[in-house]
Amino acid sequence: MKIAVFPGDGIGTEVTREAVRVLEALPLPGLTLFEGDVGAAGYRRHGHPLPPETLAMAQSCDAILFGAVGDPSCDGLERHLRPEQAVLGLRAELGLFANLRPATTFAGLEGMSALKPEIASQIDMLIVRELNGDVYFGDKGMRTTADGRREGWDMMSYAEDEVRRIAHVGFRAAQGRKGRLTSVDKANVLETSQLWRDVMTETSTQYPDVTLDHLYVDNAAMQMVRAPGQFDVIVTGNLFGDILSDQASMCVGSIGLLASASMGERMTEYGTFGLYEPIHGSAPDIAGQGIANPMATILSAAMMLRHSFGREAEAARIERAVSHALKDGIYSSDLGGVLGTAAIGDAVLERL
Amino acid sequence: MKIAVFPGDGIGTEVTREAVRVLEALPLPGLTLFEGDVGAAGYRRHGHPLPPETLAMAQSCDAILFGAVGDPSCDGLERHLRPEQAVLGLRAELGLFANLRPATTFAGLEGMSALKPEIASQIDMLIVRELNGDVYFGDKGMRTTADGRREGWDMMSYAEDEVRRIAHVGFRAAQGRKGRLTSVDKANVLETSQLWRDVMTETSTQYPDVTLDHLYVDNAAMQMVRAPGQFDVIVTGNLFGDILSDQASMCVGSIGLLASASMGERMTEYGTFGLYEPIHGSAPDIAGQGIANPMATILSAAMMLRHSFGREAEAARIERAVSHALKDGIYSSDLGGVLGTAAIGDAVLERL
Ligand SMILES: CC(C)[C@H](C(=O)O)[C@@H](O)C(=O)O
Ligand SMILES: CC(C)[C@H](C(=O)O)[C@@H](O)C(=O)O
Repeated sequence: MKIAVFPGDGIGTEVTREAVRVLEALPLPGLTLFEGDVGAAGYRRHGHPLPPETLAMAQSCDAILFGAVGDPSCDGLERHLRPEQAVLGLRAELGLFANLRPATTFAGLEGMSALKPEIASQIDMLIVRELNGDVYFGDKGMRTTADGRREGWDMMSYAEDEVRRIAHVGFRAAQGRKGRLTSVDKANVLETSQLWRDVMTETSTQYPDVTLDHLYVDNAAMQMVRAPGQFDVIVTGNLFGDILSDQASMCVGSIGLLASASMGERMTEYGTFGLYEPIHGSAPDIAGQGIANPMATILSAAMMLRHSFGREAEAARIERAVSHALKDGIYSSDLGGVLGTAAIGDAVLERL
Repeated sequence: MKIAVFPGDGIGTEVTREAVRVLEALPLPGLTLFEGDVGAAGYRRHGHPLPPETLAMAQSCDAILFGAVGDPSCDGLERHLRPEQAVLGLRAELGLFANLRPATTFAGLEGMSALKPEIASQIDMLIVRELNGDVYFGDKGMRTTADGRREGWDMMSYAEDEVRRIAHVGFRAAQGRKGRLTSVDKANVLETSQLWRDVMTETSTQYPDVTLDHLYVDNAAMQMVRAPGQFDVIVTGNLFGDILSDQASMCVGSIGLLASASMGERMTEYGTFGLYEPIHGSAPDIAGQGIANPMATILSAAMMLRHSFGREAEAARIERAVSHALKDGIYSSDLGGVLGTAAIGDAVLERL
């Protein structure tokens, strides 16, 4: 069981440290951890946010535990050297086309949301975001028009097989939940979305046990505020998924607790290769202070054990330990508490 | 003062009727109203959602009062015949490049929002959305790739002059408010956004009294939930503006009260030509029942008097009448009340 740990920047190093302690405390025979540099750390030490040795390490492992990337000191760099390129590069190079973002309100933490507690408490959804296509990875550039004006352009597109494979991920996820899939697009304006909608509808015939509906993205953004409890599984493209998954996290409120998985087609001897990361970023404002909440990263490690290693028992053990800790009031500052990163790691370890 | 009234579909006809009564009750010498068909109504009567006679009427008037378009009976039509095309067609043909969407919580109605009242009560922002460019109006199509796969594609782009003119609208609006402008883009991924950000920054040198900052759209969607009170004026592209302006409306909660303006460069003898409409749609589920809230359309008429006719006094009179009515508990069903469309029109007229 080879895991590549990429702490990255800012609080990334602090939170992955605690998740590693949790992994090492479990009975996981043959567990081997490797550490690689990404983001600003990769750029500082190797001149690139995704150094070739980091990518090679990722390719030789069974899963990646990722911290966060991003550092204000890199703002002046050219785009291809900025920390975010590590994220985009790993997604592209490793074919991680399916981003799974569960957004569920933790019992007792409804008050953390900006939404009314009775609305926030209803949130229990999974957002499935396509991660290898759309306007993210199309041709793009800056050009000067014939009459001398600067113009920026980006090609948005989806081919039917790209939509179909993420559709299957969405339908299968809905089968394992409440059987409701909401596909989000902008088919009243975009041809890319029209194809998306057509393929979703075609694919639905293979899943008679799942109810599919379609929402325009503007309406989805409204419903997500008005009544987020109505959603079970949402499936959407890369750009809309970027926006809606972050919006959903903030509806939950406690983003220091939200984990994510990015999966591809590559199978290892244990399961599907994947990258696991907390959804919060590198938080440069609180980095180095030992106060970041490591729970989202610890829960990302649990997702990894479940999805990439088939270790349901150990995954559930971690999740139970985190919920017990939360029930016992083990709160970092983002949850209104005073405990530091290491103390929270200790508290979870005690409850494992 | 020639106003084209386009009631459109669903509740559009019911709500514009009340706004027209309000306009006719004011001392507006030379006011002449024309009525035209758009949307499903245009398609039914003339075979097109934006019939040539409707467009000609729009071009010969000084402003448009628009209801709403959209009718489920049109779902099966080809895209270019669907009701939404009326909206896109008017924006393109009339050069309406600047969409102004105020989102302000009405005193006493904080409870209507899904957000906690103490958070909702802080909302007082204006969203300035570019409306003539972006992926909405680029080349687009469906093609079959060399290996026989269907692919949908849409070109996203902005040229510097398109960005500059909406930047000026945003900066000027911020000057008239709290002096803070937030530009929203996705410059870490999109070249279109990189140009957008560059031009915003360049233009900011002409407005030393306005503070400009930049947010990525995913972060903006989070901040809009977490602390919408932090925003003064937001300026953004067509696609992100579509999503964020609807999200902002729902954060306010009472979308039956929110008006909007779409302006171009054309000047009439009274001011700038514009199209004014409530942000709620045609609401087919409640159409024909006489229960729709006409206040957003009445407030849109007020915006029209202010922006297209320089009639500040009459605009303010309408706005005061609406707020008095709200203070007196004149609520339609969307606000938890029992009053119908005409009764609310009466109540506003009484308080004019
Ligand atoms: C850093 C950025 C390129 C990235 C994205 O837009 O995908 C991030 O926002 C995310 O959602 O993981
Ligand atoms: C109907 C649709 C094409 C339109 C848009 O996306 O602009 C609508 O959502 C709006 O915001 O006015």
